[in-house]
Amino acid sequence: MKFNKESIAILEKQYRTNLINSVTGFKSANLIGTVDAQGNNNLSIFSSVVHLGANPPLIGLVMRPVTVVRDSFDNIISTGFYTVNHVSKEFYKAAHQTSARYPKGVSEFEAVGLTPWFSEILPAPYVAESPVKLGVKYLEMHEIKANNTIFIVGEIVEAIIPDNLILPDGFIDLEKEGAVAISGLDSYHTTSRLARLAYAKPGKAPGEIQ
Amino acid sequence: MKFNKESIAILEKQYRTNLINSVTGFKSANLIGTVDAQGNNNLSIFSSVVHLGANPPLIGLVMRPVTVVRDSFDNIISTGFYTVNHVSKEFYKAAHQTSARYPKGVSEFEAVGLTPWFSEILPAPYVAESPVKLGVKYLEMHEIKANNTIFIVGEIVEAIIPDNLILPDGFIDLEKEGAVAISGLDSYHTTSRLARLAYAKPGKAPGEIQ
Repeated sequence: MKFNKESIAILEKQYRTNLINSVTGFKSANLIGTVDAQGNNNLSIFSSVVHLGANPPLIGLVMRPVTVVRDSFDNIISTGFYTVNHVSKEFYKAAHQTSARYPKGVSEFEAVGLTPWFSEILPAPYVAESPVKLGVKYLEMHEIKANNTIFIVGEIVEAIIPDNLILPDGFIDLEKEGAVAISGLDSYHTTSRLARLAYAKPGKAPGEIQ
Repeated sequence: MKFNKESIAILEKQYRTNLINSVTGFKSANLIGTVDAQGNNNLSIFSSVVHLGANPPLIGLVMRPVTVVRDSFDNIISTGFYTVNHVSKEFYKAAHQTSARYPKGVSEFEAVGLTPWFSEILPAPYVAESPVKLGVKYLEMHEIKANNTIFIVGEIVEAIIPDNLILPDGFIDLEKEGAVAISGLDSYHTTSRLARLAYAKPGKAPGEIQ
């Protein structure tokens, strides 16, 4: 199929949503944990967490327009912190269920059966079940003019990673972790490594890292 | 391991780069095709393409600071267009090789053995070998103050997707496509579907879409 701007615009809404959500490729699966000023925990699955830089350690996150009610957004801005928790195959269904629209004041942790856990460094709740947990300090936001989504930038101020997942060169074995990838709005995948490829240099075929 | 801001800052550079590049989870694998005013094609692999919205169909892309020489960035700004081409398992090594620093004027297409292909809609080159190809019009950019990276926003103005990959509800079967996911800087993965899960509603366990 060949789509252009005009033919995409007139697609049936749910068809277009599925198509365009699939079209960028595989996505990360993370649960964002936040807390409000009254101590109510919030948890929501996101597929839009991206790497921005290693030094300082920065990550980005896309959020829906502020006009849509978003507890996560309000909590990030008001407390200045959030957590990013990997979704693994052991609890991906519970993670998906956090996308249901629970009434304000209902903790998604309780509703879906995941366990809040706190470190001493920040107020936002971690997901105890997540093998890899990041504590993030909110830094800046950018409003995308074209559709009013928000790009949130934060700095990793805490990272909790099981020893047995970290290779000697710092690489984290997400496959061993059981971390899942998302495609489209609703499809969850485990992975199989093809290879790690060495730093590319002109005129040299890419070698595999053993 | 438990890292904090201070212990991350003093990690050995390559270890930190591997660690922080792994920590956000699986990433998309796309080749960005651009052309300069003289007609020189450029191709570069990116793991930072993200979904921003379906209507209009918008995607985001993280680029390194402009102070680093980036042909892709210059070409996007000067021509206003770029292509996003899925990396599949059939040519992931060639795709990785585009990250080598070829001299300006050298086409990565030729250097790595991929084939430029053009549609009538935009000047940027597509990758003939990519099953799913997107033609994107540059819309806006946001400079991340915290590390001077650039978040590029574009609108999909053309999407070329094989019929047999599109399910009746618009979902694209990336697994059938052989699209790969990336972890860290250099690890490539195929995937196995766990399930597609139905739209989540409070008080109802997530059903699987058959």
